[in-house]
Parts: sequence; C-alpha cells; structure tokens
Amino acid sequence: MDQEKALQLVKKQLTDKRYEHTLGVMKTAVQLAERYGADAKKAEIAAVFHDYAKFRPKEEMKQLLIEEQEDERLLHFHHELWHAPAGAILVKKEAGIEDEDILSAIRWHTTGRPGMTLLEKIVYLADYIEPGRVFPGVEEVRKTAEQDLNKAVLAAVKNSILFLMSKKQPVFPVTMDTYNDLIQNGDDG
Amino acid sequence: MDQEKALQLVKKQLTDKRYEHTLGVMKTAVQLAERYGADAKKAEIAAVFHDYAKFRPKEEMKQLLIEEQEDERLLHFHHELWHAPAGAILVKKEAGIEDEDILSAIRWHTTGRPGMTLLEKIVYLADYIEPGRVFPGVEEVRKTAEQDLNKAVLAAVKNSILFLMSKKQPVFPVTMDTYNDLIQNGDDG
Repeated sequence: MDQEKALQLVKKQLTDKRYEHTLGVMKTAVQLAERYGADAKKAEIAAVFHDYAKFRPKEEMKQLLIEEQEDERLLHFHHELWHAPAGAILVKKEAGIEDEDILSAIRWHTTGRPGMTLLEKIVYLADYIEPGRVFPGVEEVRKTAEQDLNKAVLAAVKNSILFLMSKKQPVFPVTMDTYNDLIQNGDDG
Repeated sequence: MDQEKALQLVKKQLTDKRYEHTLGVMKTAVQLAERYGADAKKAEIAAVFHDYAKFRPKEEMKQLLIEEQEDERLLHFHHELWHAPAGAILVKKEAGIEDEDILSAIRWHTTGRPGMTLLEKIVYLADYIEPGRVFPGVEEVRKTAEQDLNKAVLAAVKNSILFLMSKKQPVFPVTMDTYNDLIQNGDDG
C-alpha cells in the first residue's frame, strides 16, 4: 500500500491531534529504519497504522480480543492496552494489510514483548520519541536513539514502567518481561 | 517446635550477622501477627526459619528447585531468589516442619506472590522492616506497617522493584505480579 492511501485510510479513524502524532511516528520510524537497517517501507506503513484502533469503542475491542484469543490478561488491564492488538486485527481485516512484520509491529507497539523484532522496536520507539512527544526524559531517549536502538528501547520501556508505578498503576506483565529480556539479553545489559 | 529448639537449628545454618537479622525478623513478625490477628506462634517459627537455606551452595539449591519442580523461571534469575523456595523444601525435610502456612511464608518471603496469605505478608514485611534494616525508605514503611499491612507490603514490594530497576537488574515476574495484585485487589488500591 502506498503512503497516500494508507494515510487516507487512517485519517478517518483518528482525531486531528492523533493524526498529527501518527505523522510524527511515521517520520521517526522511517528515520530509525534507515539508521538501523530495517525495511523503511514496512516501518512507514506500520507507523501509519499503529493507532488505527485507538478510538474504537472499548466493547468492540474487547470482543475482538476475545474472538481472536489474544492474551486473556489484557482484559484485566487498562483498555489503553487494547488498541494495539485490536489494531493489528482490524488493519488486517479492514485495510487488507497481510504482512506479518507490519502487523506484529502494530500489535506490540504499546506493551512491547520479549524478543522484539527490529521493526517492532522501531515502531515502539518511534511512538515514544516522535517530535510531538513532550514528557520528562524523552529528550534523553531521543539522543540515545541516535546511537543505540536497544538501549533506547530499554530506556523507553523502563520509563514507562516507572511512570505507571509513580501513578500507582498496574504494569502489564509482558512489559516487565520486555524490560527483563532487554536487561538479560540486550547488547547493553 | 519451640522457639529455643528452632533458633538452635537455624543458628548452625547462618552467619552471626544473618542470625541477628533473623532475631529481628522474628521479633517483628510476632509484633505484626499480634497487631493484625495472625497466629503469632506460626509467624515466629516461619520468621526463625525464613533464611534457613541462605548459605547453601547454589548448586544444591538449583538441584532442589529442579527436583521439586519449582517455577522454572527462577533458574534464569539471580540465585538470591532461590533460598526462599529451597528453604521451604529444606525446613520440611531437615527440621520436620510440616505446617503449610509456615512453609509458604518461608517460600514466598523474597519474591512475594499474588494473593499472599496474612502470614506470608507478615514474614515478607518483617524481613523488610526488622530493626537491623537500614536503607532509604525503610522508616516510612515501618510507620505504614503500624497502620495498614497491605499498604506496607505494597510499599515494600514497590521499593524492591524500583531498587532493582535503579541497579539495571531484572525483576522476577512474580514480584511484578505481586505488585499488580496489591494495586488491583488491595484495600488501598
């Protein structure tokens, strides 16, 4: 699918603000793909569609997760986590994207997962550092992202966990598994 | 088993410093049991034996965990986590303690677990706040422990996770599950 067609499909699903964010993720994901030797075209499409399901009704997402036998633990966690796997399902169904690399980058863009692929890392990180993001620590992760992808992803995952804990929020187990995996198996230990 | 006999058995297994710590945990666990309506005798015995396996050789502990089909994930995490389940196994085998409440309090005193029993919480917390402990935040948890057991256990679990993350260490998934359980199901949400 070309960029124009993809953006057209996605724009209808999003608020203006979220569409702006999506453009930022797209640009950042392409840059990261070029820097770290990933498929820039796949990174672009995955980024464009990453938040496709963001504004779907909770009940619709819940039904999808149940029907498609996604990780049951998701249902006991905040619905903010649902749009990523629901998005992978809907992008396949509604936009006809069949590429598993792209779909998995959409699926894991919020929680991460142990053993992330290069494309998954790129979309996860692009979502975290795109130019529209402003929160404590983001500039440091942006700088790290210029040098070391794994280290930057680890920093983003770690910051996300610490942020949730500072707000007395639960942390999805797969996100902690991602942190552990990057600590135990990452280049930067 | 009476206190004197229990202490005699444990003293042989520990360094002087660790034995002093054990006496602190014992005293604190009995106080907490009296405060929160647990069986003080069980709390005392569990506390006395909680570090029984602390100085066993790593290989011996590893073998025990494999033979007794303990959580396989433990083997991929720091051996510091092994002495708690190994202790529960050895205390049963060598000291003849059969009481499952006591054994489970020993078993979960390092990682915690979701759905901790009252006795498990007491031994976990006593280990964290006994008078010999000196580290940032311990005094606040001690104060909380006078008012609200769940809140104090949550604070201890949370501090432990944050400490590990600050040291770039992995966090055992069951510990994060314990945090999530206390956040999602605790009285103090």
